[in-house]
Amino acid sequence: MNRIYNPEVLKELLRNRSYKELREILTNQNEVDLADFLNGLDREDAVLVFRMLPKEAAADVFAELTPETQQWIVHAATDAELSAIVNDLYVDDAVDMLEDMPANVVKRILRNTTPENRSLINQFLQYPDNSAGSIMTAEFTDLRPAMTVAQAIRHIRATGEDRETIYTCYVVDPQRRLLGVASVRTLLLAPDEKLVQEVMEDQVISVPTGADQEEAARLMTHYGLLALPVVDGENRLVGIVTVDDAMDVIDQEATEDFEKMAAMAPSEKPYLKTSVWELARHRIPWLLVLMISGMLTGGILGHYEAAFASMPLLVTFIPMLTDTGGNAGSQSSALVIRGLALHEIQVRDLARVFWKELRVSLVVGVILSAVNFARLMVSYPGQTATALVVAFTMLFTVLMAKTIGGVLPLAAKAVRMDPAIMASPLITTIVDAVSLVIYFNIAKALLPI
Amino acid sequence: MNRIYNPEVLKELLRNRSYKELREILTNQNEVDLADFLNGLDREDAVLVFRMLPKEAAADVFAELTPETQQWIVHAATDAELSAIVNDLYVDDAVDMLEDMPANVVKRILRNTTPENRSLINQFLQYPDNSAGSIMTAEFTDLRPAMTVAQAIRHIRATGEDRETIYTCYVVDPQRRLLGVASVRTLLLAPDEKLVQEVMEDQVISVPTGADQEEAARLMTHYGLLALPVVDGENRLVGIVTVDDAMDVIDQEATEDFEKMAAMAPSEKPYLKTSVWELARHRIPWLLVLMISGMLTGGILGHYEAAFASMPLLVTFIPMLTDTGGNAGSQSSALVIRGLALHEIQVRDLARVFWKELRVSLVVGVILSAVNFARLMVSYPGQTATALVVAFTMLFTVLMAKTIGGVLPLAAKAVRMDPAIMASPLITTIVDAVSLVIYFNIAKALLPI
Repeated sequence: MNRIYNPEVLKELLRNRSYKELREILTNQNEVDLADFLNGLDREDAVLVFRMLPKEAAADVFAELTPETQQWIVHAATDAELSAIVNDLYVDDAVDMLEDMPANVVKRILRNTTPENRSLINQFLQYPDNSAGSIMTAEFTDLRPAMTVAQAIRHIRATGEDRETIYTCYVVDPQRRLLGVASVRTLLLAPDEKLVQEVMEDQVISVPTGADQEEAARLMTHYGLLALPVVDGENRLVGIVTVDDAMDVIDQEATEDFEKMAAMAPSEKPYLKTSVWELARHRIPWLLVLMISGMLTGGILGHYEAAFASMPLLVTFIPMLTDTGGNAGSQSSALVIRGLALHEIQVRDLARVFWKELRVSLVVGVILSAVNFARLMVSYPGQTATALVVAFTMLFTVLMAKTIGGVLPLAAKAVRMDPAIMASPLITTIVDAVSLVIYFNIAKALLPI
Repeated sequence: MNRIYNPEVLKELLRNRSYKELREILTNQNEVDLADFLNGLDREDAVLVFRMLPKEAAADVFAELTPETQQWIVHAATDAELSAIVNDLYVDDAVDMLEDMPANVVKRILRNTTPENRSLINQFLQYPDNSAGSIMTAEFTDLRPAMTVAQAIRHIRATGEDRETIYTCYVVDPQRRLLGVASVRTLLLAPDEKLVQEVMEDQVISVPTGADQEEAARLMTHYGLLALPVVDGENRLVGIVTVDDAMDVIDQEATEDFEKMAAMAPSEKPYLKTSVWELARHRIPWLLVLMISGMLTGGILGHYEAAFASMPLLVTFIPMLTDTGGNAGSQSSALVIRGLALHEIQVRDLARVFWKELRVSLVVGVILSAVNFARLMVSYPGQTATALVVAFTMLFTVLMAKTIGGVLPLAAKAVRMDPAIMASPLITTIVDAVSLVIYFNIAKALLPI
């Protein structure tokens, strides 16, 4: 890696108050590194360093700061400084920032923006959370169909400064309805005198403002797009989603799935920046639900109290049987949940998934049972019946766990529930209870208890 | 969504042998849709439809096909057709394809490429799997520092046709050493007569060919890059990673983490395309390991046989205690594993994570214990000692599970093991065993057994 960012050197200069030298080094840094640096400082230093940044970098750095650091800077800024920052921000970054600010600060910020910016920001603030509208930007390049390629390139060169991406240009009619798309690549490679409508692609992939941000991001990965147009109910172009925002959405959605699959309420904050109380609050509800289900399993166990009192050896196999069942079920549910997220599996594949899991679980179950039987015959010679009970239970537990694990996330999706909550912990609890019933019924049939 | 892709219509035309109409519709489709369509056909139809594709789309569609469909087409193709496809592919796509082909087919393909392409492909085939070198492309645009902006734009317009991305251009010296980067945006917005070296950014973020592909993708998301240059040991530019490939890497790495966290060997194939045997083979090893660990837990349970024979009620609380412990541990390990993958947590944060988990587990543990105690006092009035034993065990189990769950993935990373294998199933097994020991020791201390 070829970077000159060294936070220790910057901190050293700050400690020694070598502001002149610091300011010089700051002008040479990448804005993402600068934001990382500011996020690591305390309030006073963060405000101090932010003011040293070159004017043209300030808004870019500001957009990358954590909400906390943004608030410090907004609080310290004069109205004039604030107005400069906010008007330089892309609308989507401004909206992101405002969503994390207290109401009185939002008012002060909106007072310091231009009227056009204010009305755009207000419009964007109304799109629902996690919708394509909420992550789009309004700064895109639009062309008219009757422009020549040379005119289009001149237009881009004249207006591109304020556009978040110039690489994908959208062709619209006077009512702003989306007619086509022309990449800068297409324009640069076309002869100057051709018309935009001759070189543009008229099969445009777009989403409505209310579409799920995950759907927008998935379309972009599927088709390898750098930008995706967002349209209103009348197919008028209102914004674009850029690929960097799509990548953030993909990371965020995967993180949410990880959290839900580990029985937590999802959070958008990085772990180290989340308070102890908030972490606890996200974890307790599911643990409580699953604890209560665990009590039911205990109840089942209590029901067979007489059986294990007469043959305590049976109890020692319970952890292995229920753990293996839980693990076997989690494997299947994890694959199906991830397949659904990547659109590789659809709800209509339910029968195929069931049939596949049935066969996989047969292979896996037979092997695990055989290993178990062999091991028990070695450890407890002569107790063939007990070994058979454990081996049969293992087989049926794996069969049951894997089919339930594969099918439940799809069933959840079919009734519009989130498949990810059907993951490991819930499956484990269900499998625990059912495998105990299987275990004691097989034991009753084969053993004199 | 605004797409005209309708596989049913295409299939209908194919069934009716309306080839002329089919061919016409095919020219209007997105290449990703065309590849999806071909992947869904049987061998004969796939070859037939592929031959109907317009010449200029064939290579783009081919790059998106599954290895199986690619093989069908390679087998059916004449040497001339093969040579046309392979020479039109970007080098990274050609290498991807070759990695999945049998040796004799690889030979035939290489025989049908131009000598320059062949030597490039051979070079690329040598980069290790999952390295930046293995996903980079050789088709990038390079500029010289002494060109003017106008010359640079002319150069892009003249050579851009064969370049995978033209939006980020790299400035190199005669030895091909990387001097700087200039986006098409920068060039278009700069005055014609400026020199490239005056407008280029000379702080270039790059990776060596051997860098992990995940590291390359993470750098691109972190800095919002559309392309990342890959350099050899002498800082000579050998290729670039483009953002669409980075997005694939991010999805693939998240999928691998999902699989490992659910105790499976990772696979790169979609679930529905993986055979029953392959799925079983990926699942059995960890299930076996964990089953054997489960036997150890059973051994611990056997060790306390006397205790639970004298007080069978104690046994009924085991599933709830071990399940809750497992869930509490999985929550912590999932957050830390994901934080590590996103580079939000580093190995050096171990003490911070430990301290955070200790406090979170105290909050969570106290609440779960209290709920449990209250519930037991209602269900088993008078058995205060038993209720206390269960409540204390719950507290200590949650404390232990969460600190182990938070710290183990970091410890794994510190000794260069994969943190994701320290996830839910392994933690659950460890927590099961330890919580039983805690349970029976507290029971022995507080109860007359």
